[in-house]
Amino acid sequence: MFSAATYAERRKILCTRLTERGEKGLLLFPGHSASPMNYTNNTYPFRQDSSFLYFFGHDHEGLTGVIDLDAGESWYFDQGFSMDDIIWSGALATPEELAARCGAERYGAEKTLTHMVTEAKKSQRPIHILPVYRAETRMRLVQLLNCGIMEADKFVSTPLIEEVVKLRSVKSIEEVMEIEQALETSYAMYANALTATRPGASERQLASVLHSTLALAGSAPSFTPICTGRGQILHNHEYSHMLHSGDLLLIDSGAESENHYASDITRTFPVAGTFTGQQRDVYSIVLAAQEAAISQCAPDIPFIDCHMTAATTIASGLRDLGILKGSVESIVAAGAHALFFPHGLGHMLGLDVHDMEGLGEDFVGYDSTITRSEQFGLRGLRLARKLQQGFVVTIEPGCYFIPALMEQWEAEGTCKEFINFDTAKQFSEFGGIRIEDDIYITSDGHRVLGQQIPKTVAGIEGRMHACSQRMFQGR
Amino acid sequence: MFSAATYAERRKILCTRLTERGEKGLLLFPGHSASPMNYTNNTYPFRQDSSFLYFFGHDHEGLTGVIDLDAGESWYFDQGFSMDDIIWSGALATPEELAARCGAERYGAEKTLTHMVTEAKKSQRPIHILPVYRAETRMRLVQLLNCGIMEADKFVSTPLIEEVVKLRSVKSIEEVMEIEQALETSYAMYANALTATRPGASERQLASVLHSTLALAGSAPSFTPICTGRGQILHNHEYSHMLHSGDLLLIDSGAESENHYASDITRTFPVAGTFTGQQRDVYSIVLAAQEAAISQCAPDIPFIDCHMTAATTIASGLRDLGILKGSVESIVAAGAHALFFPHGLGHMLGLDVHDMEGLGEDFVGYDSTITRSEQFGLRGLRLARKLQQGFVVTIEPGCYFIPALMEQWEAEGTCKEFINFDTAKQFSEFGGIRIEDDIYITSDGHRVLGQQIPKTVAGIEGRMHACSQRMFQGR
Repeated sequence: MFSAATYAERRKILCTRLTERGEKGLLLFPGHSASPMNYTNNTYPFRQDSSFLYFFGHDHEGLTGVIDLDAGESWYFDQGFSMDDIIWSGALATPEELAARCGAERYGAEKTLTHMVTEAKKSQRPIHILPVYRAETRMRLVQLLNCGIMEADKFVSTPLIEEVVKLRSVKSIEEVMEIEQALETSYAMYANALTATRPGASERQLASVLHSTLALAGSAPSFTPICTGRGQILHNHEYSHMLHSGDLLLIDSGAESENHYASDITRTFPVAGTFTGQQRDVYSIVLAAQEAAISQCAPDIPFIDCHMTAATTIASGLRDLGILKGSVESIVAAGAHALFFPHGLGHMLGLDVHDMEGLGEDFVGYDSTITRSEQFGLRGLRLARKLQQGFVVTIEPGCYFIPALMEQWEAEGTCKEFINFDTAKQFSEFGGIRIEDDIYITSDGHRVLGQQIPKTVAGIEGRMHACSQRMFQGR
Repeated sequence: MFSAATYAERRKILCTRLTERGEKGLLLFPGHSASPMNYTNNTYPFRQDSSFLYFFGHDHEGLTGVIDLDAGESWYFDQGFSMDDIIWSGALATPEELAARCGAERYGAEKTLTHMVTEAKKSQRPIHILPVYRAETRMRLVQLLNCGIMEADKFVSTPLIEEVVKLRSVKSIEEVMEIEQALETSYAMYANALTATRPGASERQLASVLHSTLALAGSAPSFTPICTGRGQILHNHEYSHMLHSGDLLLIDSGAESENHYASDITRTFPVAGTFTGQQRDVYSIVLAAQEAAISQCAPDIPFIDCHMTAATTIASGLRDLGILKGSVESIVAAGAHALFFPHGLGHMLGLDVHDMEGLGEDFVGYDSTITRSEQFGLRGLRLARKLQQGFVVTIEPGCYFIPALMEQWEAEGTCKEFINFDTAKQFSEFGGIRIEDDIYITSDGHRVLGQQIPKTVAGIEGRMHACSQRMFQGR
């Protein structure tokens, strides 16, 4: 955990801002319960709710935080523990100690919480909650608020969402250090994966390298790793294939820091250690798109502009390869490039890998100056609004040849004036490439976070060649 | 998946038995949805509900199975897939193909399912469900059955539970082969862990070995592995400590087979490769208890008898060490041994590691001939009823020195006539030992499943010595 002062300060700012907006009542932050896997007591590894972590820090189950806007004080609630808990899970600190660790002025047991919420409802004090995304949390709220199953949503508070997003969007130095700690684990993951990648290895072997590196670092994955020779399936979670010479291996993975901040990195490697000519061509386009988008990152630049820069670079590159035709401007305006780059450029990064996605993507990525596009490829852009100092974002353009999508567009004639389908079909076995880094917005520009993981053609081929040399010598 | 005939046959037997009991209407098997981790789309690795797996086999999200008792036919329902699903997750087979794979006569989409359930309710046909343990499933049932949040429980059907337990309790040869496949992964996990265990290693390093072995086998853990130098905390999931010479390392872990059958193995190793005298004494008692309990396993033997055999062996051994006093019979009758062996001997093993625990432990482990004891140590016994040919059970006695519990009993004077607290306190730094294997009940006895993982004192010390020799030679 951070110091108690960190959590107290965050809650104080939230309290002040909401009070200035004229809000009153209680802010209710239900922490997570355990998530059952195949029966109640066989649970997934515990992951706390990120807004609870942000304001109260503790990462065990059964907790609730309350901020009383009117009294200007915070409550820490837990469910206590019994001798059975000690026998099965070990001793915990007392509620008093745990409240002190997150700087909460008050603490109490479940009964006090129920009483507090019941009294607040009776006296018509407003109760504010954030959007609910776990059914277990909904059930708990239904009980606590004594309301119907969908009625709980009536307590979701737009002012609370807006102020939480405002706070969590701007990362403090200690938060950036956490992301960099997660990136150290990422660095080790990719270093180990690069060493293990070779024809005849399996996706499973590579996934095993990622998982063992995570476990050794005491880290949880910030999301289920993608580790595939078939990168054209964007969120492919199967590891059932062998890797062959000529394949591209795409790894999109992230770690969590001690305080549960995420890293999120993608690299695409040639399994044989050397890109084919066609692979080098496409890889260089994606890399150029990523570098162009990164170089544009600075305060006051709308993130959608960075996306469009990447889109333009990809459109231009694919036009040079004869896959797209017409002027680059008209290709991008029509969205024809999105057949090959069908997703957004990136997203916020923090306590969640898609930071604050649970609070509502439009609150996080859009504002009054910009609304979400309906165009294929752009409509999935999670972040479009202006960057600010302290934001951490991912930049992750990609280029994919998705046979089913190409067939659909050709059959429908979608963007047919801009696409040479016959040329594109020559790439139908190609797969996909994505390159992703995590970027911190500074006062006058940006900084790529973490130690650099090889990403140029020469850097990757050099490292892979060195690895195979070492292995050869080792025999 | 098994063959379509396997699933069709299981459903047919269920249907026949329920019909013979005079039951009518629909059996509803909601499959699992994805479990959100920190927002809706960042989910835990998918785990299907085990009864759904047993009767319909498919392990992806959003499925529902229905058995129509009156028509004697089965329905497979899925939610279909869109071009977006293909882009993000790859193409799936058609509903028709998927229905055929599990031998379902009929298939349909969500709309048909809703209509079917609505019509059944209207015409007052009974609808049977199994107990609900995931809130997401409850929410889905509330919607489908158009009922209140707790009202869904009214559809839970005792005849259905009883017949499902009866079927799932007796394992077919192909099910036993699955458990043995999971045990192959367990064998590799313990072989690798034994090699990596040494003073100066960390719990994390050992956990990393377990996770990488699982991932390499393409297996998921059947539960979060316990891997600790503090085995006296029974379900310790922390890996934050270093392992020192003189410590005992307790690893309790399991893998899943391709079709999601579980293994469940515990071993306790001396970190330094050699047991101390005190450790050897206690270890030998636990091993003797485990072997005595295993040797008793056979059809018609109540499992509680095996538990009592283990309890008696442990009581006798601790009496020899001067920790317990009085006659062994009276120690066991009073439950004094349970201070050191506070849990049950074992449980059923199958598609769940505590097999069918979600259906209700009393349905699984007890019957009209035996009711659950209230005594500490015995009240947690998950399985007490008579063993039958085809059962697979774990046998996992343990001996722990839990300082907080010893202090409590001494302060309360619990069983003081049987316990030498002063002698026991000499073991307060000891930790805990547990030894567990998976046992198949044959027609006339039992078979310990899987390749034997070292468990005798000589076997463990010999293997650890050989490992450290090899490492020494390798330098």
